[in-house]
Amino acid sequence: MGKKVTIRDIARLAGVSVTTVSQILNGKGERFSQKTRDKIFKLRDEYGYVPDFNARSLILRQSSSMIGVLVPNISSPFFGTFVEGVQHVAQHERMIPLIFSADRNAELEQNYLSQMLERSIDGLIIASATMTTDTINRIIGARDVPYILFDQNYAQEGTRVLTDDYRGGELAAQHLADLGHKKIAILEPNELSENFTQRLTGFQDCLRKNHIELDVAHNVIKAPLSRRGGYDAAAAVIKAGVTAAFAGNDDMAIGLMRGLRERGVKVPDQISIMGYDDIYLDEYVSPQLTTIRQPIMDLGIGAAKMLLNKIHSDQEQEQIQRFPVELVQRQSTARVR
Amino acid sequence: MGKKVTIRDIARLAGVSVTTVSQILNGKGERFSQKTRDKIFKLRDEYGYVPDFNARSLILRQSSSMIGVLVPNISSPFFGTFVEGVQHVAQHERMIPLIFSADRNAELEQNYLSQMLERSIDGLIIASATMTTDTINRIIGARDVPYILFDQNYAQEGTRVLTDDYRGGELAAQHLADLGHKKIAILEPNELSENFTQRLTGFQDCLRKNHIELDVAHNVIKAPLSRRGGYDAAAAVIKAGVTAAFAGNDDMAIGLMRGLRERGVKVPDQISIMGYDDIYLDEYVSPQLTTIRQPIMDLGIGAAKMLLNKIHSDQEQEQIQRFPVELVQRQSTARVR
Repeated sequence: MGKKVTIRDIARLAGVSVTTVSQILNGKGERFSQKTRDKIFKLRDEYGYVPDFNARSLILRQSSSMIGVLVPNISSPFFGTFVEGVQHVAQHERMIPLIFSADRNAELEQNYLSQMLERSIDGLIIASATMTTDTINRIIGARDVPYILFDQNYAQEGTRVLTDDYRGGELAAQHLADLGHKKIAILEPNELSENFTQRLTGFQDCLRKNHIELDVAHNVIKAPLSRRGGYDAAAAVIKAGVTAAFAGNDDMAIGLMRGLRERGVKVPDQISIMGYDDIYLDEYVSPQLTTIRQPIMDLGIGAAKMLLNKIHSDQEQEQIQRFPVELVQRQSTARVR
Repeated sequence: MGKKVTIRDIARLAGVSVTTVSQILNGKGERFSQKTRDKIFKLRDEYGYVPDFNARSLILRQSSSMIGVLVPNISSPFFGTFVEGVQHVAQHERMIPLIFSADRNAELEQNYLSQMLERSIDGLIIASATMTTDTINRIIGARDVPYILFDQNYAQEGTRVLTDDYRGGELAAQHLADLGHKKIAILEPNELSENFTQRLTGFQDCLRKNHIELDVAHNVIKAPLSRRGGYDAAAAVIKAGVTAAFAGNDDMAIGLMRGLRERGVKVPDQISIMGYDDIYLDEYVSPQLTTIRQPIMDLGIGAAKMLLNKIHSDQEQEQIQRFPVELVQRQSTARVR
């Protein structure tokens, strides 16, 4: 005998949502066409479908077949690509992703989270720069809503996808050391979430291993985590008198390159620039940006798959999926002169 | 006497959604905290709120306080910014935008549309490259769901926000004519939706007015509407032997510039490049891209406001809101040598 047929199979065969099937089979299908209702009953009989505990719990929990995705900025290349990955998986499972871009606004993030919960979402992917797991758990309260944390969190705990930020930072520092740079600046965001702390610690530890001294007082420059932030920091980088700069992410690096260009500083001839992320823009700016690659689309796919697993299996255990990082050498870094 | 208090006012004062207020006032508020319920009843009494026809119809229609937004590609700078505009308005009205990116896949678009309708969305913003209004109306069927069309549609009809694409095309052509260019290529998408048809007609009409002949057989180059499409078309543009090229949008133009750079062609010294849209990347590529500006964020805000008006007023009349276009001259175009 084959595998037991589930409500999800029936939904897939009929080309409708699980909610539709469950409503029709529970006698609440008045709002669907006769044709759809007939099809569902026919498939039920044909495959001998019997509602099981999971299906019933799905109905009892009033599954909305929606998952919430909270990101800092949907129009950024990084999160745009991440969300695309989530969408691919959701679409395949006939789930709808509710996407929220809260622009690092704590109140708005919590607001969105409450609104999603009001709508009985099945699960959440949270890339929040402001919310702690305590806050998240408080808002979720007694509801049994699984969630996955991603990227910009202050806590590295709970089920999550991640890349090795410490290793990424090391790779970046080693690359600049290999090119002979000794005077190096770091461009970092004003507030360090856990992934940035890791990234920058890896970078600094590796500099130390290479006996390169970092002038923390002058050469660690704080700036908003954006193209504009990098652009506005160009003067400070020039003033630092360095031969290379490592920007916290590619957006900052691309902004910094523009700022340097407008001030007549040649990249990489005068200053080498190193980014982090490998967003799709890196190959379209000139010079093309050397960076540490995170597999952004795969991270979105991985986070969504992990969440769906959690939703379907009611698994309680913490799970962690790690993705690799690697150096992508392009044109914005060169041997020191 | 002041303005009549609506359910929306009560919701705003209480900091909860309209759905929450309506459920509590209709005795279906068990799932909300006692504190929230008390607050709502107190506000009702304090402001003498009486349910009116609109509020009741809102309840009868089972408003989900969600609006659907269908775009070709959420990770593109253009639609990312557009969606941000929609989000600003939705957030202010405590509506949730359901964002779908269907990658110009007709089946997927129709699929998403059906799924949104199943979830009782209150309205729709559709920037679809594949769906005709006939298709949309067929899927919406008897449901009373208002929608706004935007950008990439084959039909220019129905309530919509738009920019003057014909005028934008004229501005682009006049700029290149003013710089003395006579040999000009056009890079256009494989299939022309209405906005591109307008844009390119305006461009060609204006060339004609300036007595510039366009070699349609060789100098109108078809390519996918993407950075990659523009990049891959670089060889064809070089082969055409032109001094200037007008790309259908900025993504294509930025890809084309990369392709030309890799082939050793200098922009604008050897070929001037002109884009269309004014996406945020234009200032970060080098040379900075000359383009025709569409107010992208404002288009998102305008579309969302128009849709909310339609939802709240049950207005049947077709409405059109026009936004201006303008030439933004940067560094990728120069006088012909």
